[in-house]
Amino acid sequence: MRRASALLIGNELLSGKIADTNLLILARCLRGLGIALRRVVMILDDPDVIASDVKSLAATHDLVFTSGGIGPTHDDVTVEGVARAFGVTVIRDHEMERRIRSHYGATCTESHLLHARVPEGARLVSTPDMPWPTVVMRNVWLLPGVPEVFRMKMRHVETLLGGDAPFVSFAVFTTLDESDLKPLLDGVVATYGDVDIGSYPRWHDPEYQTKLTFDGIDEARARAARDAFAACLPPATVVRIV
Amino acid sequence: MRRASALLIGNELLSGKIADTNLLILARCLRGLGIALRRVVMILDDPDVIASDVKSLAATHDLVFTSGGIGPTHDDVTVEGVARAFGVTVIRDHEMERRIRSHYGATCTESHLLHARVPEGARLVSTPDMPWPTVVMRNVWLLPGVPEVFRMKMRHVETLLGGDAPFVSFAVFTTLDESDLKPLLDGVVATYGDVDIGSYPRWHDPEYQTKLTFDGIDEARARAARDAFAACLPPATVVRIV
Repeated sequence: MRRASALLIGNELLSGKIADTNLLILARCLRGLGIALRRVVMILDDPDVIASDVKSLAATHDLVFTSGGIGPTHDDVTVEGVARAFGVTVIRDHEMERRIRSHYGATCTESHLLHARVPEGARLVSTPDMPWPTVVMRNVWLLPGVPEVFRMKMRHVETLLGGDAPFVSFAVFTTLDESDLKPLLDGVVATYGDVDIGSYPRWHDPEYQTKLTFDGIDEARARAARDAFAACLPPATVVRIV
Repeated sequence: MRRASALLIGNELLSGKIADTNLLILARCLRGLGIALRRVVMILDDPDVIASDVKSLAATHDLVFTSGGIGPTHDDVTVEGVARAFGVTVIRDHEMERRIRSHYGATCTESHLLHARVPEGARLVSTPDMPWPTVVMRNVWLLPGVPEVFRMKMRHVETLLGGDAPFVSFAVFTTLDESDLKPLLDGVVATYGDVDIGSYPRWHDPEYQTKLTFDGIDEARARAARDAFAACLPPATVVRIV
């Protein structure tokens, strides 16, 4: 199973100015592709920090996705950071330059051409339905921070990284609280060590107190774990099984 | 200025099952206290990974806030992870045990008492308006993942960590895009190196194309940077100054 990590870049995320929305999009996309997202790091617009984190994440994960910092302004330092992570320089990509010049025509400026900067050795990937390319350096995908564009880029991720079996997820909703259900759950956890079992309490929800989830690549095992747990519960405490 | 980091713990965050909402609450709370949030890491429910990240974050930041994994079920391994980070064992805290027994009375079970587990050497902090304690191990605050409870715990953070001057933030909204405003902005960036200047493009917003932010602890400097930039813009391109 491929393992992925994400690096969310931007002072605005850490200052509380805006809430990141790209992670959820990426996490769900990867989930559907059967790729396990294992770690997410959120950092400031600092090329040294980006370099250090990209180096570390790229060495320990099959795939790294960065979000943010690829525009033309002074605070867009992701390309520089990724280049430093791999010990290469930033160059102007000729194919990207050609596309930008063709797009802007006579109004093309040096600022526009800053979008053609890539780490030396990077490649451009695209799909017929989304021809504007994504820059990929080794196993690191450089994605934009703007949510509308980030979402569009998921088409590249899906098309070019698809192929594995997706994760499945089952759930049981119960009126029991975590302390009451723990003795029942522990037996199922011991038997189904290969299923990712999660317990999520709700406060002030009129319908249920705890949601139990049973996830994995092996649908039959995840379903069996869910059914084994549901069978342990007093029937009156079961709100829903999905 | 105090530097903080956050460790968001939970398989459900990385699987895309739920979107974290605690970070925004923490980031805004710290911002108001003049504490700089520098790094956020999101990881799975794995005590070894928690231990490794807590150790590293606690050594490089004045404060660390963990979110999640402090309930009674098998996937709640934050106390264990924090204990390992500091090379101590998990013990049952007597004061916490007393409170739990007092709260549940005759219905108190061993599962309830799992909430009294703390890393050896941890302290309990509380405030008169929020007497249920928060566990703090050295510079690491163990906060719950459930958003309603996380939000309540901010009262402990505010009351017990307040005191510094808060950050201020000013902004200019313009109809220029980033490529067009970059030459104007670069001069301001060069002059106001002590102000945190950010540029955030919008797609498909009928009102403006880019929001520029000017942040810092020194209100006069941040305001001066904003005004210097606004003065560079063609007046017709200025949508709003705040």
